[in-house]
Amino acid sequence: MIWADTIKWYGDYAELIDQRKLPHEEVYVKINSAKEMYTAIKDMLVRGAPAIGVAAGYGIALSALSSKDRASLERDIFLIESARPTAYNLFYAVKRMRRLLEREGLKPSLFVVEAINIHEEDKKLTELLGEKGSELIKDNSLYMTICNAGALATGGIGTALSVFYKAKEKGREMTVFVPETRPFLQGARLTAWELTKNGIKAILIVDGAIAHIMKTEEIDGVFTGADRISKNGDTANKIGTYSLSLSAREQGVPFYVVAPSTTFDLDLKSGEDIPIEERNIKEVTGFMGVQSAPENISVRNPAFDVTPHELISGIITEKGIISPPFEEKISEIKC
Amino acid sequence: MIWADTIKWYGDYAELIDQRKLPHEEVYVKINSAKEMYTAIKDMLVRGAPAIGVAAGYGIALSALSSKDRASLERDIFLIESARPTAYNLFYAVKRMRRLLEREGLKPSLFVVEAINIHEEDKKLTELLGEKGSELIKDNSLYMTICNAGALATGGIGTALSVFYKAKEKGREMTVFVPETRPFLQGARLTAWELTKNGIKAILIVDGAIAHIMKTEEIDGVFTGADRISKNGDTANKIGTYSLSLSAREQGVPFYVVAPSTTFDLDLKSGEDIPIEERNIKEVTGFMGVQSAPENISVRNPAFDVTPHELISGIITEKGIISPPFEEKISEIKC
Repeated sequence: MIWADTIKWYGDYAELIDQRKLPHEEVYVKINSAKEMYTAIKDMLVRGAPAIGVAAGYGIALSALSSKDRASLERDIFLIESARPTAYNLFYAVKRMRRLLEREGLKPSLFVVEAINIHEEDKKLTELLGEKGSELIKDNSLYMTICNAGALATGGIGTALSVFYKAKEKGREMTVFVPETRPFLQGARLTAWELTKNGIKAILIVDGAIAHIMKTEEIDGVFTGADRISKNGDTANKIGTYSLSLSAREQGVPFYVVAPSTTFDLDLKSGEDIPIEERNIKEVTGFMGVQSAPENISVRNPAFDVTPHELISGIITEKGIISPPFEEKISEIKC
Repeated sequence: MIWADTIKWYGDYAELIDQRKLPHEEVYVKINSAKEMYTAIKDMLVRGAPAIGVAAGYGIALSALSSKDRASLERDIFLIESARPTAYNLFYAVKRMRRLLEREGLKPSLFVVEAINIHEEDKKLTELLGEKGSELIKDNSLYMTICNAGALATGGIGTALSVFYKAKEKGREMTVFVPETRPFLQGARLTAWELTKNGIKAILIVDGAIAHIMKTEEIDGVFTGADRISKNGDTANKIGTYSLSLSAREQGVPFYVVAPSTTFDLDLKSGEDIPIEERNIKEVTGFMGVQSAPENISVRNPAFDVTPHELISGIITEKGIISPPFEEKISEIKC
């Protein structure tokens, strides 16, 4: 049984596992309102593009349950929409809720049902991603990922990591190199925890060691998630992914992006149009309250980067694995 | 005046600035014996290839001052030699001390003089590196480095950073992107501190952001130090440097290695022969004492990687800047 309890729904409140406290504490936080959900997304108590989408759905449902009028719900939808700028699944969920409001007006139960639908669909999507992607996984093999694209990043069993989970179910053994993924350390804290919990061997490295490990070990493939994919296949994902893709190409290692169609944004021609979030500089000047850098140092903290489609060997979607050239196939998948 | 007080000599003891405590505390630690120097090098109280060489010299001088017989000095030389495996300057200093012992026997003052010579020569070498390299620095320009290749890494004003210091003395202004350089955070803790102290603007980034910054900013060049350079120009340097060189090539940014001839090891044909130190996994599972990863996670912690000579635009030595093909020119420089 693959662990997949990132987001729980209890009818009039949600619970989120607090991803800032993992791996040391497995604590759930009760979310009672859209405002609390907004803060949870913004402060990365919940993160990962599909999980943000699911959380956004429940946040809007909570608003529908408590809103006295349509204007109040609309304000909360705007608030949720503004929580983070890069992950497309957030806007996908918001769009669905806005469409529902247009069609049905303020009928609270319908918003709850729609939020549950988004969650259930995400579960199914991740199962399908795992099924399709696991075809690529060989027995006794060695892979690399980055950040956390697992159950913790989705409403189901993960994007990139679902591939390993499904291959494991089929009896294949594998080891996964996990870059720690500064500054938020999703690799060290979340992926290392989640893979181990699901019986998959993880080897932790610093982000700077990616190129060296890729050169000196026989890596069979790289699997990453995605926060937003533009029409031509350019993929925004956690900062460091672009660098990882350059190393993979240098060593001739296949580089796969694993993402449901809810991550594709066909309104954007290329990765240049994807807004890249810059987060608080304190994430870079220290970790969990421990200051590393001198006071008053200048910092740049882009949370994502864009891997150009030329560096991607294939994109694993719920409808199958697509290979370059991507543009036409991506349009078909979104239909 | 450029700050350059990493290692101080007081006749019968040395003082080292404790690089594990920077940037929060500027504390000097008194080193009274070869054994204390061995521990200081091993535990990275002092680090950086040229600084390790200078420290090794003083460590052996301290042994000469206290050794009752030649065997005792020889044992301490072996000890110092075993402190760390990658930086060539350590072996260079040890070689000089062994040659002196062969020639003169146990005459303590001669060892002290030789240690001071190694230190003084390193000072001069870094001045020359800065002079030569600063020719490449334009006014109002933007550079990137990695780890710390500054005064803190040498007996003088640095290798890579000396280039910026000398350009600054000539009136040129520049900004330097500083990757934090996990796991030991030499970038965040040491380079950010040192550049700021010397009036040069530093912008801190996480290591994973290198490729993104290199693509989205107009970087004029990359300058790094070196721990060991083989005959063909392959360069071992802090883990992450290889990845940085791949990003530089991708964006057409010139990539320079700055190193005195004491870092060149002509006994090694290529980078494949350079021993790469693997350090304690606790450096990776935590961040300045704060545990980040789950307990019992597997870890790889290579402290260095090798940048192949094909990715290096030029090597700045005390005798001038050499460009590819390197092999013949490196042999000339070592003569």
